[in-house]
Amino acid sequence: MADYIAPVADIDFTLNQIVELDDVSKLDGFQHLDQDTIRGLISEAGRFYSEVIAPLNRVGDQQGSVLQPDGTVKTPDGFKEAYEKYVEAGWAAAHIPETYGGGGLPYTVGIVFQEMFKSANMAFSLCPLLTQAAIEALIAHGSDEQRDTYLGKLVTGEWTGTMCLTEPEAGSDVGALRTKAVRQPDGTYRLTGTKIFITWGEHDMAENIIHLVLARTPGSAPGTKGISMFIVPKYLLDDDGNPTIRNDVNVVSLEHKLGIHASPTCVLSFGDGGDGAVGYLIGEEQRGMRYMFTMMNTARLGVGIEGLAISEASFQKALAYAQERRQGRAIGAPVTETSPIVEHPDVRRMLLTMKAYIEAMRGLLYTTAKEVDLSRHADTEDERTRAGEIVALLTPVAKAWCTDRGVEMASLGIQIHGGMGYIEETGAPQHFRDSRIAPIYEGTNGIQAIDLVLRKLPMRDGEVVKELFAEIGRTAAELEAHDDFARFRTELSAGLQALAEASEWLGRRLEAGEYNEALAGATPYLEMFGTVTGGWIMAKSALAARQLLDAGGGDDAFLRAKLATARFYGEQLLPKATALLPAITAGTSTLYQADPAALGP
Amino acid sequence: MADYIAPVADIDFTLNQIVELDDVSKLDGFQHLDQDTIRGLISEAGRFYSEVIAPLNRVGDQQGSVLQPDGTVKTPDGFKEAYEKYVEAGWAAAHIPETYGGGGLPYTVGIVFQEMFKSANMAFSLCPLLTQAAIEALIAHGSDEQRDTYLGKLVTGEWTGTMCLTEPEAGSDVGALRTKAVRQPDGTYRLTGTKIFITWGEHDMAENIIHLVLARTPGSAPGTKGISMFIVPKYLLDDDGNPTIRNDVNVVSLEHKLGIHASPTCVLSFGDGGDGAVGYLIGEEQRGMRYMFTMMNTARLGVGIEGLAISEASFQKALAYAQERRQGRAIGAPVTETSPIVEHPDVRRMLLTMKAYIEAMRGLLYTTAKEVDLSRHADTEDERTRAGEIVALLTPVAKAWCTDRGVEMASLGIQIHGGMGYIEETGAPQHFRDSRIAPIYEGTNGIQAIDLVLRKLPMRDGEVVKELFAEIGRTAAELEAHDDFARFRTELSAGLQALAEASEWLGRRLEAGEYNEALAGATPYLEMFGTVTGGWIMAKSALAARQLLDAGGGDDAFLRAKLATARFYGEQLLPKATALLPAITAGTSTLYQADPAALGP
Repeated sequence: MADYIAPVADIDFTLNQIVELDDVSKLDGFQHLDQDTIRGLISEAGRFYSEVIAPLNRVGDQQGSVLQPDGTVKTPDGFKEAYEKYVEAGWAAAHIPETYGGGGLPYTVGIVFQEMFKSANMAFSLCPLLTQAAIEALIAHGSDEQRDTYLGKLVTGEWTGTMCLTEPEAGSDVGALRTKAVRQPDGTYRLTGTKIFITWGEHDMAENIIHLVLARTPGSAPGTKGISMFIVPKYLLDDDGNPTIRNDVNVVSLEHKLGIHASPTCVLSFGDGGDGAVGYLIGEEQRGMRYMFTMMNTARLGVGIEGLAISEASFQKALAYAQERRQGRAIGAPVTETSPIVEHPDVRRMLLTMKAYIEAMRGLLYTTAKEVDLSRHADTEDERTRAGEIVALLTPVAKAWCTDRGVEMASLGIQIHGGMGYIEETGAPQHFRDSRIAPIYEGTNGIQAIDLVLRKLPMRDGEVVKELFAEIGRTAAELEAHDDFARFRTELSAGLQALAEASEWLGRRLEAGEYNEALAGATPYLEMFGTVTGGWIMAKSALAARQLLDAGGGDDAFLRAKLATARFYGEQLLPKATALLPAITAGTSTLYQADPAALGP
Repeated sequence: MADYIAPVADIDFTLNQIVELDDVSKLDGFQHLDQDTIRGLISEAGRFYSEVIAPLNRVGDQQGSVLQPDGTVKTPDGFKEAYEKYVEAGWAAAHIPETYGGGGLPYTVGIVFQEMFKSANMAFSLCPLLTQAAIEALIAHGSDEQRDTYLGKLVTGEWTGTMCLTEPEAGSDVGALRTKAVRQPDGTYRLTGTKIFITWGEHDMAENIIHLVLARTPGSAPGTKGISMFIVPKYLLDDDGNPTIRNDVNVVSLEHKLGIHASPTCVLSFGDGGDGAVGYLIGEEQRGMRYMFTMMNTARLGVGIEGLAISEASFQKALAYAQERRQGRAIGAPVTETSPIVEHPDVRRMLLTMKAYIEAMRGLLYTTAKEVDLSRHADTEDERTRAGEIVALLTPVAKAWCTDRGVEMASLGIQIHGGMGYIEETGAPQHFRDSRIAPIYEGTNGIQAIDLVLRKLPMRDGEVVKELFAEIGRTAAELEAHDDFARFRTELSAGLQALAEASEWLGRRLEAGEYNEALAGATPYLEMFGTVTGGWIMAKSALAARQLLDAGGGDDAFLRAKLATARFYGEQLLPKATALLPAITAGTSTLYQADPAALGP
């Protein structure tokens, strides 16, 4: 069995039947991209990730990236060669605007490529993900000269990028960082300090690494307001533009992590050797945090994708195992034979749970990605603004809800394997281990929930949220036309009503300035938000599948499976949303009654 | 910080205020055990597990047990010495009846020791757990001679035991096993076959290992009915009763597992070298499966304990980190300082969630253990029978619900640590990895759910379940006397009503012979059952804490924390139970609509 097969039929259905990618393809600049062209590209990319990248997933986990005595980092066998192929084939550049040497594909298609890369090999995929973030920062805020100097090679993937934010005392609280940057007479800066948790901070796959570093200039404002952003290349360029001069950036150590072993997580020291590492200011001083925010939505969406991608990879293994492994006899099966475990109702339930969440996540993530495209390319300012609002609203939900589901689905993937699921050779445990980072990095899921409640819920006086709810309500109403969706409709309406009620309750707390009361319920609120928007996506899926079936077009088994998973979600998973209302609206009532010390042994 | 501190105050509260251990202490044979004596023993054992066993948890994970070229298995550094101390101190024998050389403590106290051992070092604890199972089998079904020969050294722990059930084609379906046992003229048997997943199947900590092996005699009935149970010692005894003659049992390989690395999971080959391994029949031929069932409840309860124990260990690390780590500023905190993250509402929510589930699990497990004692020692036959029914009913719930929670709580424990939670040095990832086996072994949680629905729900025509529900209803009514428990009362009553409704619905399916319809909802039913019985336990906890506070006796901070966690459970976690009703009563409606092949990529 292949390690991973790109689920192109599912992707295609999501793009065309749920997300309606046509809305993007008809925009200026994308008009050459008809469905068939995009389908062809996705298939081709799928083959690449499946055949070249996926086979390196387990060796990457086993060998990990290793810090050598000379301070370089050796990636696992095969990674360097595969990365070369990735660069040569041009996948790295696919969804960068053509102006900057990219392939000019919509962001939504870029997200599909990301999903496939991450399903194939999550640890590997983080290298291009970080490079992508650096590209976005340079496009948005770099000077013409900086773009000329760095963008080209980053876009092709010949150079890679990092984001250096975290320090030992500055994690979720980025504003506490201490790395110093001092301006030199020639306009460059010298940086000194230590950064931790730097993903792909050093490796042997590219000829240069461009670190984007947050640091503080002398006399800058305290907190996030005083932070600036710098380009700090591993190798400085000589007069011919070649990266030949080693900068003072060094790996102190690599972390020993639960998963994503192939991804070197570095402690990086800047300027340990003397006068500081040479850095170049991006934009203006003390605006670094604002620049960070421009990348945040897409970076967070990229991490949300990991929840989906790991679930898909884990599901494929579990499904194959359940179809092959025979154990016991299913009720109704001939007495003389054992049944594949997929025939047992409990195994079937686990598989449908995985598949239903996967479809809901995919729809939610692609929907958000489409709004990213619309926010950049829609014809009118008003459309772009509206799309941007939806992106802002759905991004924390997509990041946190999908990554929490990712851990749960990887856990179910193990369970379906029975005893074999605990054995590393099956690959199921690696997905479980890899999945666990995604709820943590790029803003913990707790931070996402705070963002949703404090910043997104109040957008345009709560109207952005209300418009989305109205949209979900319209989809719920469409379910009415079909008898077999009656239950789904009831549950979606109930979930939506609970979500509206929760939103109003939280809104009133915010208006009253009772922030802790609102934040106490932030995490269950985000979970409810995700579960109900997932229900909205699955309602669309059910409606589309029904319509195609009735029209007699398409693959019947595929469409009936779509109907089954959509109804399963609507009738059995969606009801969990309303049960979160008490936790959301409890406020701090019991939270602060216990002295933390009295909770311990 | 210590790796683990035995939570003796919590244990004491659970034993005396929730479970009322006095009901056991006043029974014949336990009357010398007053509260203070038991308290003293638990404190002493707690110190042992905390000081001797817990420090080996991480080294055990890192080194693992290793198969040597000579076929022996080397345990991690320090294990052999610690095990010697365990044997010397007499902990192994503490809750074995005095008749067999044990300490004669109630089973409920034995469960407390198990919890502490497993919190300290889950992988290590599995060795005594399996020995315990072997002791129980021999006590219940061994001949006098067998008991004389093997029990003494097993009770002290000088020898250890294993249970050899699983084979490559016989996992959950034990009846499919093929290992052969052929009777010899001298009354012994010769066994040939391969067993997999044999926990502590070979190691260097004891001078002999007594394997209890399920095998099939020639001409035996197919399936589970034809299975017999054998004693197969690693070393046969010479004429002086010393274990000097190597039997033909050999380790083929050790599994590479996600966690519990210190526990050697062996593939064992019997009789590879020639005529078969020498075995001694326990009881009669073809009754082995029945003998297995006598151990099943306590073995499953022992695994349920792992869910609690890992949650406790994981919680202790998370709480300590949250109290120490400063990041950001909590709302209302002085502007000039950063706050320990325990002050942030979302972190507080995660900690209370862990603590609340831990208390509910502990109460549920100890309650079940107490019924084990009553089923063995209560004064009348009727009381013993009633207690045995409760044990039978609650065991699958305790096993599955607690182990599922164990994985979730270990995951929360990681999340509370933020980025540090992903780093192996903190120990949080090990708990997450270790926890994941418990929902799988000793009957997967899916099997537990089937057992609950098919065998336990119909006990005494459903009266056993109804009596438990009536008991929960009485506790719910007691909440009425207190205004601040009003919400808790509403939620417990709602949960109970949903549980009764679910039980009736399932009962009707079973009566109609629609087994698949009932089994389709078995897993959410078990989850609802656990959540509601957890609510019952927490209601008892709240009532007891309130009473002690009102009486002015006891540690106020401790009791207020108990109130807070109980109310948090009742008001915020318990409501999730009712949301499972649609999934329980959906039957197979959508489960079998999708062709499994159409779910794949």
